[in-house]
Amino acid sequence: MLGRLNHVAIAVRDAKAAAAVYSAAGAEVSVPTAQPEHGVTTVFVALPNTKLEFIEPLGEASPISKFLEHHPDGGIHHICFEVDDIIAERDRLIADGRRVLGDGTPRIGAHGKPVLFFHPKDFSGTLIEIEEA
Amino acid sequence: MLGRLNHVAIAVRDAKAAAAVYSAAGAEVSVPTAQPEHGVTTVFVALPNTKLEFIEPLGEASPISKFLEHHPDGGIHHICFEVDDIIAERDRLIADGRRVLGDGTPRIGAHGKPVLFFHPKDFSGTLIEIEEA
Repeated sequence: MLGRLNHVAIAVRDAKAAAAVYSAAGAEVSVPTAQPEHGVTTVFVALPNTKLEFIEPLGEASPISKFLEHHPDGGIHHICFEVDDIIAERDRLIADGRRVLGDGTPRIGAHGKPVLFFHPKDFSGTLIEIEEA
Repeated sequence: MLGRLNHVAIAVRDAKAAAAVYSAAGAEVSVPTAQPEHGVTTVFVALPNTKLEFIEPLGEASPISKFLEHHPDGGIHHICFEVDDIIAERDRLIADGRRVLGDGTPRIGAHGKPVLFFHPKDFSGTLIEIEEA
């Protein structure tokens, strides 16, 4: 069961600058936070019902560097759904023909919770993250 | 003031097929609805806190045909924020250096409410819709 949309992640060169339009619009914007284990620096924008997550590359081998080569202005990188039970949802999606990325073992995401990603070709060209809420 | 994230719009060749993964996951999915004045057919997926809007081309001159040429698997087309006063928010964003698309006159969107779009280059590569809620 896919639950709430936890966030829309937007990859950019400068997360703080990208979020400025939202702070000017009255939204609460976090300070940039380095996430070395994920190779990104994050800035969160709190909307009344969900979040935007701006991510910029951190370090030499950032997983979003190639995305930004192809999208020099930035762009939406993935969307994240909350799930109650990540293992049960993983197995249900795999049984439904969707491909999990990596070896299918959840790892701890930017919010300190277990996450998995699914292949964009199985979700209308959209990289999907699921996060155990 | 940008308010709730009203929806994430995903352009696809077949909106009903694209939404099937979400109905299998227990979400409420609308029937496909032709929107001839917008050149798309829409299928809405209700999430607990927002919506996905799958859009497929309708007619010869659909505004999303070119997007699908560049993204044959589909992809996120735009995100939509609710605003209280679309004219005030338009003018504030323009004063902040963001480019409105078209002549800046709101038109009636897929939900029957006034909408405007802003240039993706001014929003981190993301096409932005604002809708008067």
